[in-house]
Amino acid sequence: MKYAVGVDLGGTNIVTILMNEKGKIMARDKRATEGWKGKDHVIGRIAQGIASVLNCKMQNAKCKMSPLALNGQAGGISLPAQQKLRQRTTHDARRTTAVVGIGIGTPGLVNLEKGIVYEAPNIPGWNNVPLASIYKREFGIRTFLENDANSAALGEWWIGAGKGTRYMICLTLGTGIGGGIIIDGRVYHGADGYAGELGHISLSFDGPKCGCGNLGCLEAYAPAIGIIRRTKEALRKNKKSLVYKLIGGDPGRVTPAVVAQAARKGDGLARKIWDDTGYYLGSAIANYVNIFNPEIVVLTGGLTGAGNLLFKPMWKTVRARAFKGPVKKLMIVAGKLPDDAGAVGAAKTAFQRAGK
Amino acid sequence: MKYAVGVDLGGTNIVTILMNEKGKIMARDKRATEGWKGKDHVIGRIAQGIASVLNCKMQNAKCKMSPLALNGQAGGISLPAQQKLRQRTTHDARRTTAVVGIGIGTPGLVNLEKGIVYEAPNIPGWNNVPLASIYKREFGIRTFLENDANSAALGEWWIGAGKGTRYMICLTLGTGIGGGIIIDGRVYHGADGYAGELGHISLSFDGPKCGCGNLGCLEAYAPAIGIIRRTKEALRKNKKSLVYKLIGGDPGRVTPAVVAQAARKGDGLARKIWDDTGYYLGSAIANYVNIFNPEIVVLTGGLTGAGNLLFKPMWKTVRARAFKGPVKKLMIVAGKLPDDAGAVGAAKTAFQRAGK
Repeated sequence: MKYAVGVDLGGTNIVTILMNEKGKIMARDKRATEGWKGKDHVIGRIAQGIASVLNCKMQNAKCKMSPLALNGQAGGISLPAQQKLRQRTTHDARRTTAVVGIGIGTPGLVNLEKGIVYEAPNIPGWNNVPLASIYKREFGIRTFLENDANSAALGEWWIGAGKGTRYMICLTLGTGIGGGIIIDGRVYHGADGYAGELGHISLSFDGPKCGCGNLGCLEAYAPAIGIIRRTKEALRKNKKSLVYKLIGGDPGRVTPAVVAQAARKGDGLARKIWDDTGYYLGSAIANYVNIFNPEIVVLTGGLTGAGNLLFKPMWKTVRARAFKGPVKKLMIVAGKLPDDAGAVGAAKTAFQRAGK
Repeated sequence: MKYAVGVDLGGTNIVTILMNEKGKIMARDKRATEGWKGKDHVIGRIAQGIASVLNCKMQNAKCKMSPLALNGQAGGISLPAQQKLRQRTTHDARRTTAVVGIGIGTPGLVNLEKGIVYEAPNIPGWNNVPLASIYKREFGIRTFLENDANSAALGEWWIGAGKGTRYMICLTLGTGIGGGIIIDGRVYHGADGYAGELGHISLSFDGPKCGCGNLGCLEAYAPAIGIIRRTKEALRKNKKSLVYKLIGGDPGRVTPAVVAQAARKGDGLARKIWDDTGYYLGSAIANYVNIFNPEIVVLTGGLTGAGNLLFKPMWKTVRARAFKGPVKKLMIVAGKLPDDAGAVGAAKTAFQRAGK
């Protein structure tokens, strides 16, 4: 049996998972990113997570693996956790080969081939960090980077909602909107690795300005920031809404969850916000359907918790706007790995790119 | 050397080409579709075109092939041209194997696997026509269907503007807008064969109604019909435009060519029409760039004749709207096979699907 480590580097947490090649999660580690402490600290946190799952026998009785050796090249960052691991495991060097790779799903601009992250949001001083070579050197295991949204898509394809499908689109509905395209079980990267920015399809060429510089992007309407913005705007004209009561009159407390709560109790303003969100999302999905003819669209991220508040108007819009043919067999479903998709997909990336 | 026949079934003409596997055009036939004469007539016209290029030695000195045999199963439609061909060629039956397939690029709704065209615009009575089996039976050669825009894209990829690229998008700017996506030299079909409807990406969710039922599609703005509609609207308020003079005051005579002619002479109204057309097209391409990160976008069809009137505002919009990364190496170019892309691509389809 072969193994791979997958790391999901998030703004808040780092999730690290050890997977076997059959798609079984063997060990899992979750720790705070603590990005405010700077680049070197985060690099160390990632290493701790990796060390933790490699050392899984001691921490997780479910894991059948022996401790894994680090090869002689190990060096670079010194970490207490890693030091301990090394002492315990060098006796069993042959097991190194069982872990074919480490995959890291990271936000920001990534050079897939060189394994460098050019920038990472929320981490001060993160410039041109050669993550892949750092962990290759540290653990003696080949390391591969992937964009975080692509990782999440690949994770959902491998053992989640997209399992067994050939043409899959994944949208991560969080603060912003990330996307990933999976064709025949592989992330579609396009010519230079930039493909899959599905949140940055413009739905209205003269719409609101998006953070990316374009106008009217899906990301400018539909994710958490869009819901919060539109709710605040609506509340200015309507103080009778249940939302206003739930937030105690403080617009700073508007969240998608509060708006969903009010909508479920029949609040008109809140329902309209979700109807519009579904409409925007459905308009974008209709475009994807006409272009890609996907078998499945997987929606992940916090907003999917709104359930039918989001899915009903979204389906209505997709049916009204897309061609009939490609909608006939289309599935649009919520993801099945809310916490682990990114790390699972990063492990799959490692399996695929290590050629195992 | 292996050969394949490619047929481009257009509303006006049928272009039929015999290609060798290296991408050389060995013979070419062009004849009017005469769609108004109905289904059976068009089926016969296609057969005549195929017979003509198969019989190339007698008609085209450049072609090195001997006349090709029709196998004993031939039957079905009886055609004088085909009868003659059969008489001349049955003596040389072994050559049949040199032609590995016939590919037909057709408009309308196509079932790729079954080789059936469900509907074809402009041809009365065209319902569920099993084109592939008709020519398989007629010529004893395996026959494959492809959507016409996909064929054109594949043709430009094989021996035209997209030669040697891995990630290509092709937009056919004609009366409407067709599209094709080529990944690693193969048409991307999606889950059910409907992918690549690139003219039906909505640029404005509350824009003008498109023929497909959606609102604000690229096809509702940018192709010939959009240019004509927008020019007529503008002329109502501005009779001083050179366009008005060129059409002798008759709005029925507005064509993209006339608008281009006036724009080249500096006419403000005409320039605005082309600026807007480039803006709409650029907005759509920016979306494709963010989603696909293509290496090249190939523009084909009559409108590309406008040259920089179209390309300049289009590039400006793409640069303003798309992410910087995927635009850096992006090429956007006019097609190189204005008349033959569809037939060439249909032949390539036959090579690919016959597995040769």
